[in-house]
Amino acid sequence: MAEPVRPDAVRVDSEALRAYVTAVLESHDIPGDHAALTADALVTADLYGIDSHGVARLGFYVHKITHDLINRHPQPHIVEEHQAGCLIDGDNGLGPVASQMAMDWCIERAGESAIACATVRRSNHYGIAGFYALQAVEHGMLGLSMTNATCLVTPTYGARSMFGTNPIAFAAPAGHERPYLFDAATSTVSFGKIQLALADQRPITKGWSVDSEGVDTEDAVAALQGSLLPLGSTRALGSHKGYGLAVMVDVLCAVLSGANYGPHCLSLTSEFDQVADVGHFFAAFRVDAFRPLAEFEATMDDMIRDLRASPKAPGQDRVWIPGEPEFEEQERRARDGIPLTPDVYTMLETMAADRDLADELGALRPA
Amino acid sequence: MAEPVRPDAVRVDSEALRAYVTAVLESHDIPGDHAALTADALVTADLYGIDSHGVARLGFYVHKITHDLINRHPQPHIVEEHQAGCLIDGDNGLGPVASQMAMDWCIERAGESAIACATVRRSNHYGIAGFYALQAVEHGMLGLSMTNATCLVTPTYGARSMFGTNPIAFAAPAGHERPYLFDAATSTVSFGKIQLALADQRPITKGWSVDSEGVDTEDAVAALQGSLLPLGSTRALGSHKGYGLAVMVDVLCAVLSGANYGPHCLSLTSEFDQVADVGHFFAAFRVDAFRPLAEFEATMDDMIRDLRASPKAPGQDRVWIPGEPEFEEQERRARDGIPLTPDVYTMLETMAADRDLADELGALRPA
Repeated sequence: MAEPVRPDAVRVDSEALRAYVTAVLESHDIPGDHAALTADALVTADLYGIDSHGVARLGFYVHKITHDLINRHPQPHIVEEHQAGCLIDGDNGLGPVASQMAMDWCIERAGESAIACATVRRSNHYGIAGFYALQAVEHGMLGLSMTNATCLVTPTYGARSMFGTNPIAFAAPAGHERPYLFDAATSTVSFGKIQLALADQRPITKGWSVDSEGVDTEDAVAALQGSLLPLGSTRALGSHKGYGLAVMVDVLCAVLSGANYGPHCLSLTSEFDQVADVGHFFAAFRVDAFRPLAEFEATMDDMIRDLRASPKAPGQDRVWIPGEPEFEEQERRARDGIPLTPDVYTMLETMAADRDLADELGALRPA
Repeated sequence: MAEPVRPDAVRVDSEALRAYVTAVLESHDIPGDHAALTADALVTADLYGIDSHGVARLGFYVHKITHDLINRHPQPHIVEEHQAGCLIDGDNGLGPVASQMAMDWCIERAGESAIACATVRRSNHYGIAGFYALQAVEHGMLGLSMTNATCLVTPTYGARSMFGTNPIAFAAPAGHERPYLFDAATSTVSFGKIQLALADQRPITKGWSVDSEGVDTEDAVAALQGSLLPLGSTRALGSHKGYGLAVMVDVLCAVLSGANYGPHCLSLTSEFDQVADVGHFFAAFRVDAFRPLAEFEATMDDMIRDLRASPKAPGQDRVWIPGEPEFEEQERRARDGIPLTPDVYTMLETMAADRDLADELGALRPA
């Protein structure tokens, strides 16, 4: 769920933000369609309330572009192609470019073959995993999306980061209900939660992290120097499961594609002087290849309503359906604007000065 | 990892156990090939040290067969078939029968199309998920296997079981190393762990379970009357992720196939008077459709060795690779015999008396 909105947040219109991010990327010689797609991926994260994966990342993207660590004019291409599976080389372009190509390929081929998947190498940070998985839903399909990521998580019993937060997203259409959208890191929490605790000078929750010696810590500074824990937190509570899922994501995204795996994956937030070679994995499943879509959707509605109506634990008034927090935040923020933190807004102002985009910035905050 | 072996355990040879279980099932008019396959699935779980899914379950299987809740002579059949995906109807036979047919189909079709998947309805308890996923490895493929299961787990913030422990298994070939084998429930622990604590009159670990009101409990009796928690245990530690993964498994296994989903899934251990209509999902990915198998396997070896060699937390001497505990236990038990608990051995003795299998039982414990 979205973090509480800070009182000093700067609210901007989501469409204006999309246009501004596109303009910034274009000013760095990114082709218009690549810029618009990347802006869409980032602003969608902001609309969902996943601020850590939204426009806050634009500075990293621009850094990588201006240091020639991301190819401005990539030609992503299919290296291996079979009836229901392909390998795509992202040509070191912005992550969304190769990712969109891969998801489009999966959707087209699942139309013919019932299911199709694509693994992608030589890519970069792709935004939120759910952005791609959800696209399958419009075609009456289930969507799956995974990426490996900067090495930040320790295996169970370990004391060193050996793989990333490696998220998995899965989306399915419903009938009258909103789509099912699961999108989560395979670590206990994202790195952003630790950074947020540090900024607010709060301790972190026990079970999120270990220090650089592999010892449990509630200190955000020690956690930043240490590692996140896999989902499950401790062996007794199942951290070997989060660990095993994270490595599965690395196998599908990186070992299968030839991208950098685990400790070699640099993604975005670390190692600013190297090409990332991130790997992704996508799949689409055409529902009516298995069962009539209307039947499937009606059953999804039933299941969602069963979950929502189920008894609540003391003090709780709601059992949430995966995706609901994001979709409800999206409605709020599309209406009320996206609350950017002052440092993110300042970053956008600096970019405007830098790239001569005063008019475009002005459109973000109409008088 | 396997539970410690009880001092009163009865050690039996794994091959003899396989033959005995086959004989018991055949004595109940199960065809020889179905009986042998089911015995293989159960004894493999025992060899891996996953006793809760091994021959201990034979009593439930026999109960269901003798009460005509499982079809002795099923004709599992393909209902929908496309190039890379199919729907199989298990005809209410023993779970391994339709599951093996589905995994075989996936492996054959992945050979042609790079990837293939099958969803299965009207099936029954299928043993351990990893039994099927691992079969892909012998063909130079990645394997995926999931099943829904008896409703035992509450969603985050809930107070009622709404889905099963819904396991996910994923297997990948390595070169010189053993295959990667991830196989885990999407709940914190299996139901068997609670039953074991109850039998030993031990409290359970905080974070495993809630009571029937949805309140955290360390009491095994209250837990048995309540629900297991999803992987993550609490919202703060990510239980919404375990919950979201469990529902994903239900979507792929049951909503997509038309099997009983979530609260309607009876599987094996509850509701002895109804047909289960369990759903499964399988997939296979042919590695060399994406990357030369030798390259893939060499990278798997590197990743596995990196993980194994990574620094350890204080007091730990080993970072385990998923699958290692099972494979090492398999070697030990194939050599030393499978340690059956006295109640499981007594169950086998009773079956021998019942079905006139004294000679077959005798082969289990040669003089």
